[in-house]
Amino acid sequence: MNVKRDSEPVRRIQIDAMRGGEFRSHSDLVVVEEPLEIRLARTAEPGPGRAISVTMRTPGHDVELAVGFLHGEGLIRSREDVASARLCGPASNVVRVELKVGVPMDLARLERNFYTSSSCGVCGKASLEAVNEMLPIRSVASTIKVSAELLGSLVVRARSAQDVFRDTGGLHASSLFDGSGDLLATYEDVGRHNALDKLIGARLLEGALPLSECVLLLSGRASFELLQKAAAAGVPVVAAVGAPSSLAIDLAERTGILLIGFLRDASFNVYTHRERLQ
Amino acid sequence: MNVKRDSEPVRRIQIDAMRGGEFRSHSDLVVVEEPLEIRLARTAEPGPGRAISVTMRTPGHDVELAVGFLHGEGLIRSREDVASARLCGPASNVVRVELKVGVPMDLARLERNFYTSSSCGVCGKASLEAVNEMLPIRSVASTIKVSAELLGSLVVRARSAQDVFRDTGGLHASSLFDGSGDLLATYEDVGRHNALDKLIGARLLEGALPLSECVLLLSGRASFELLQKAAAAGVPVVAAVGAPSSLAIDLAERTGILLIGFLRDASFNVYTHRERLQ
Repeated sequence: MNVKRDSEPVRRIQIDAMRGGEFRSHSDLVVVEEPLEIRLARTAEPGPGRAISVTMRTPGHDVELAVGFLHGEGLIRSREDVASARLCGPASNVVRVELKVGVPMDLARLERNFYTSSSCGVCGKASLEAVNEMLPIRSVASTIKVSAELLGSLVVRARSAQDVFRDTGGLHASSLFDGSGDLLATYEDVGRHNALDKLIGARLLEGALPLSECVLLLSGRASFELLQKAAAAGVPVVAAVGAPSSLAIDLAERTGILLIGFLRDASFNVYTHRERLQ
Repeated sequence: MNVKRDSEPVRRIQIDAMRGGEFRSHSDLVVVEEPLEIRLARTAEPGPGRAISVTMRTPGHDVELAVGFLHGEGLIRSREDVASARLCGPASNVVRVELKVGVPMDLARLERNFYTSSSCGVCGKASLEAVNEMLPIRSVASTIKVSAELLGSLVVRARSAQDVFRDTGGLHASSLFDGSGDLLATYEDVGRHNALDKLIGARLLEGALPLSECVLLLSGRASFELLQKAAAAGVPVVAAVGAPSSLAIDLAERTGILLIGFLRDASFNVYTHRERLQ
């Protein structure tokens, strides 16, 4: 069995950090988020094999990721089933796993006529090209400017509305504020993407899209998929209590979104479009 | 436009709570995690419409979730596109959205020849029946027993190995220990399912499956999908720093896994199979 390995899990970037009422610019590390395509082939068959999945992952241990994923799906039982597993593709973002002769390749297990899922915005996209197509190219249209004071108050303002989290500790929340910091809505869900889908769906049903004068607060980390949904709804300011991923930062930069991370009461980091800060 | 609504986001269960060296049994609330199927139809067409997605979600605001999801996918632009959206199905776990006459139903956007994704274990399953099929019926085979002291030491033992999290604060981790608490491996990723896939894939490549004498530590919450992957790898003890979902508890109960949640240094909650505790 033949295994080849991969690249960097972190990226160094320049951020503006608000600490004790003042901004300080310094370099910081963010976790890298990039698509990985998993392909399955038979050892006797030449060619690229079949695309099984595209997942947004942090580079590193990509071969293990592919093999573990295929095990969870019941396509690999043990290492004896694997002829080779190697990282390939122009940007080292494809793992090709070859099954040994005689190992059943039961793709019927996977072919369930599937479309996509809100648990993960990249589902439904079986190739890396399709992931690139998902990147919105339009910028959000907004003239909003927010103050550091307003951003610092969001977590406290949202907390009162988070019923289920208070009861269970088990939920992600998405909260929407207007430009003066008034809470418009909070939605919670076991899946972070669902919480944001609920929020945007509710505003859509009220005829309130695009959300071009609003501020979005995310209770956890800021991933590519959350920024993608925010951009599609026209949100110009996204503040996350947790860390942003590299691809979330790229998408915010490209679409004109002020992206805030590690938001605490009086401290936060600014990743993109600082011009939207007063 | 016609909208109908839904059910309970929390479930009350009985747990054993370890606090200050002693167990106390009491009732507690856990967040509910259940599949929701999103179906899209034309207003003029009778019938069930087309299954677009199945997502694991917390019940509540299901219509908003479906509409928000379809907006993010570009299938609905505004409420003017929606003829009706209502919760239906025997267990109120289907939302059927009808588009108005003349609204383009561009399913080609979604039909990307897709299989599944490790970001979310339910991807690849376009119907609720398929989600039920995913439930493993085999119990994990293990005679392992662990002590409260061992469980209480896991977070500290794992922390030293979490490189990228320390650098970025942006990662989930999965860590594997043997029955005496020695750390075997830690993997990190921006996606929690990827971290576990990497861990299980690495063990598989070493010929070390099933993991029937091991303890798995999850840095965040315990979802259905993570328990599903753990059960498939034969892990008998899963300890999570965060909260478990209702469906994660159900799956642990059914497969013989000791499930621990809210793990801190000397306190944790026991949800299932307490007989694996010394």
